[in-house]
Amino acid sequence: MRTLVYSYQWFSLFFLIFSLCVSAFNIPRLGIMQRTHQHEPARTVSSSDSPGDDLKTYYYTQRLDHFNYLPESYATFHQRYFVNSKYWGGAKSGAPIFAYLGAEAPVDEDIDVVGFLKDNAPNFNALIVYIEHRYYGKSIPFGSWKEAMRNATTRGYFNSAQAIADYAAVILHLKTSLSAQNSPVIVFGGSYGGMLASWFRLKYPHVALGALASSAPILYFSGAAPRAGYYYIVTKDFQETSMSCYQTIRRSWSEIDRVAKKPDGLSILSTTFRTCKKLSHSSELKDYLDSIYASAAQYNNPSYYPIKATCEAIDEAAKKTSNNILGQIFEGVVAFMGNKSCYDMNKFNNPSQTNIGWSWQTCSEMVMPIGHDKSDSMFPPEPFNMKNFVKDCKSLYGVLPQPHWVTTYYGGPDFKLNLRRFASNIIFSNGLGDPYSSGGVLESISDSVLAISTVNGSHCLDILGASPSDPQWLIMQRETEVKIIKGWIAMYQADLLSIK
Amino acid sequence: MRTLVYSYQWFSLFFLIFSLCVSAFNIPRLGIMQRTHQHEPARTVSSSDSPGDDLKTYYYTQRLDHFNYLPESYATFHQRYFVNSKYWGGAKSGAPIFAYLGAEAPVDEDIDVVGFLKDNAPNFNALIVYIEHRYYGKSIPFGSWKEAMRNATTRGYFNSAQAIADYAAVILHLKTSLSAQNSPVIVFGGSYGGMLASWFRLKYPHVALGALASSAPILYFSGAAPRAGYYYIVTKDFQETSMSCYQTIRRSWSEIDRVAKKPDGLSILSTTFRTCKKLSHSSELKDYLDSIYASAAQYNNPSYYPIKATCEAIDEAAKKTSNNILGQIFEGVVAFMGNKSCYDMNKFNNPSQTNIGWSWQTCSEMVMPIGHDKSDSMFPPEPFNMKNFVKDCKSLYGVLPQPHWVTTYYGGPDFKLNLRRFASNIIFSNGLGDPYSSGGVLESISDSVLAISTVNGSHCLDILGASPSDPQWLIMQRETEVKIIKGWIAMYQADLLSIK
Repeated sequence: MRTLVYSYQWFSLFFLIFSLCVSAFNIPRLGIMQRTHQHEPARTVSSSDSPGDDLKTYYYTQRLDHFNYLPESYATFHQRYFVNSKYWGGAKSGAPIFAYLGAEAPVDEDIDVVGFLKDNAPNFNALIVYIEHRYYGKSIPFGSWKEAMRNATTRGYFNSAQAIADYAAVILHLKTSLSAQNSPVIVFGGSYGGMLASWFRLKYPHVALGALASSAPILYFSGAAPRAGYYYIVTKDFQETSMSCYQTIRRSWSEIDRVAKKPDGLSILSTTFRTCKKLSHSSELKDYLDSIYASAAQYNNPSYYPIKATCEAIDEAAKKTSNNILGQIFEGVVAFMGNKSCYDMNKFNNPSQTNIGWSWQTCSEMVMPIGHDKSDSMFPPEPFNMKNFVKDCKSLYGVLPQPHWVTTYYGGPDFKLNLRRFASNIIFSNGLGDPYSSGGVLESISDSVLAISTVNGSHCLDILGASPSDPQWLIMQRETEVKIIKGWIAMYQADLLSIK
Repeated sequence: MRTLVYSYQWFSLFFLIFSLCVSAFNIPRLGIMQRTHQHEPARTVSSSDSPGDDLKTYYYTQRLDHFNYLPESYATFHQRYFVNSKYWGGAKSGAPIFAYLGAEAPVDEDIDVVGFLKDNAPNFNALIVYIEHRYYGKSIPFGSWKEAMRNATTRGYFNSAQAIADYAAVILHLKTSLSAQNSPVIVFGGSYGGMLASWFRLKYPHVALGALASSAPILYFSGAAPRAGYYYIVTKDFQETSMSCYQTIRRSWSEIDRVAKKPDGLSILSTTFRTCKKLSHSSELKDYLDSIYASAAQYNNPSYYPIKATCEAIDEAAKKTSNNILGQIFEGVVAFMGNKSCYDMNKFNNPSQTNIGWSWQTCSEMVMPIGHDKSDSMFPPEPFNMKNFVKDCKSLYGVLPQPHWVTTYYGGPDFKLNLRRFASNIIFSNGLGDPYSSGGVLESISDSVLAISTVNGSHCLDILGASPSDPQWLIMQRETEVKIIKGWIAMYQADLLSIK
């Protein structure tokens, strides 16, 4: 697969592959890696790496295939999870367990990012467990990442239904080994991980009492996809920040095309945008810019508002050189990426575990029809084309995408109708500035399946760690979430008393 | 597998393999098989056999493995379903769909048995669909039943999670092809099929609005198994019918052993019980009698009360020959089985699809720890032994049973606590005379997850067809169920109006 991964085809398939809670270029690096040892429950093996002082690392012997009884289904792999028991009130008091459900990245990269759990654990006397998603980080079947991704047979177990079954097994194992049968479990996740959290509560209500699903675009699937989608919101975010900036970007695409057509046009563009390697096609530059605007919108964090910074640079440059659109755009790039000696056009397409893994996931089951629709006026129209997508995925991975499976298994189009009298204890939180909120649940379904949206919020903002610079609306959003979760736990404890 | 199927080992593994809604020896044969033709939706192929006048047969091209993306997961098979649209009010009026979820038998054998659907369809203007369970009847992967059951690799896809995913796919396909998006679906099932119906509502609430789960022993799994189990209730049923009959049966086992030890003892027993073939071991006779008592209790239908008939014969014989215990027992056999020229001790262990299929299912995931506990005083104690069970299954099928998977995937021990504020629209109906009611949900969980039990009811009684001889309590039970289901549909229609 290695060659394919680097191929142009892989790039072109996906406008957008970052659906993590943090942008690909500012994932905070983790602190001191610490070696830990301790007594391990029967089905876990100890490990030697663990980020952070209060964390212990475990490996659970996980079943490769939960849903069949083939001889190969019984194969196992080591699934990594981290436990922070510093704040835990203990099994006897029925103190809760916060479980972070890993997404499409090594879970250790998320631990310091999703500060919501650690920020609130003391208040809840909660144990925290961070569980890694299969096929990411160190939770890799078949011995190595290379082997696991080698062909259709080894990749085939890499999907969401298996992943949430893994989480159920790990959590039940953890509760048994801690004798914590009466400790309610709240699951947390963001973006794809947020989808997993909400689906987990729906499919395993006996394992998790409730779920906080942050920025989970669960309505962004075939048959349920929104009319005004991802790039519509990117456009809106830019329009709301600066109409002139939006206009400059809107006009820049044809300007790139015009220059590219010149003799030596790609050299001119390479120089203008200070690319690390000479452009081989203008689409490289356009995809790069596309990713910057999308990132700026998705991660438009109030602590630094990247759209504002980008647009200010573009607008400022316009004052100086009103006719040099590409020069203005380049100033936006510098503002967003930082002043660098050169700019790597493949920055967003590097063959990381996340990019390769998520590419497979979107090509098999997580088929989100994200494209540039006509109404997304900041970009040249290029609507999502399911036929081409299916064909490309088939030729890339050898198996057909199953675009209807997510809505068959988890529900979709009539989500609101179908769940208003079913399910409970789910928070769908969204920031309306987040392009993924276009596929989010923005209206409460019932008294306990709740939508909590903030007008200015960005992707996963609520489950990130609190910061002194947090605006009041963000503080309030988190307080509301805490209050709701407290209510779930209080109800559970009352139920427990009334039954036993 | 053929040789294994006939082996002693296969018999000895399972005290009890009938968990169907009808006893193995009185399944009503179906009427005229009728050839039908009609326009078929895209993914179905037409068929040439169909039981009953109002039924049409369809085959859906079903995916072999819903939960993986391996090349072999994409294999398909033809899944059979029958549609009766005689009473349907049509898609425009949003008239409901009754879906019967097949269990461990060819579904055509059930259609005339589960009369509840047809009896009530006119009242609801409902479409009826009967869907066959994979690996039964004509819904067989790998081309033939022999191939499908040949080895661990072909059998491995034969399980409940795949089966309910099949049902979701068929129902969604049917709704699409009928343009019946607003027709609410109610699923029905009995015994194992009842478990599937309740699990289906839990896992696919967006596909089924509600479920009637008749005689579904969903709490009879590892970690949740009842203390007073299946044979405890068999014993109680006999005690309540006739204490003297119960005492005779209780004493008969040691009498069988005593005679068996005599020189030519097996010949004496064979003659006494008029066996078709000479007994090769006294356990053959004991297992046969065990099955008769269990059947009599499980299918103790009020139209003929087999326990009463059996016990009357035993007690009557006792009046004539008080010292001839085995003669008395034999009279019970004659009363229950009918007067035959000889009695086939393998009657309950014939290599039918149901016996072979259910044997696999209990040996892989449906591990119900049913044994003769000490408190089941009518039988010699022989408690369920998980260790031996696992060992025997492993040697029989080559793969290890997964006794914890059912409770991991579907929930179990704390069912009441976990679902009281989750889920809705499930009726768990049980007859307390049914030995399987020991694993049933006998207390309502919430306002809409309801337990409806009748003191004298037997296995699946409520979903069988109405009969003029039905006692008042059975008529009332069915009326209550109809009223509840009407309430679900009315609520759904109100919700639909309020949303659209």
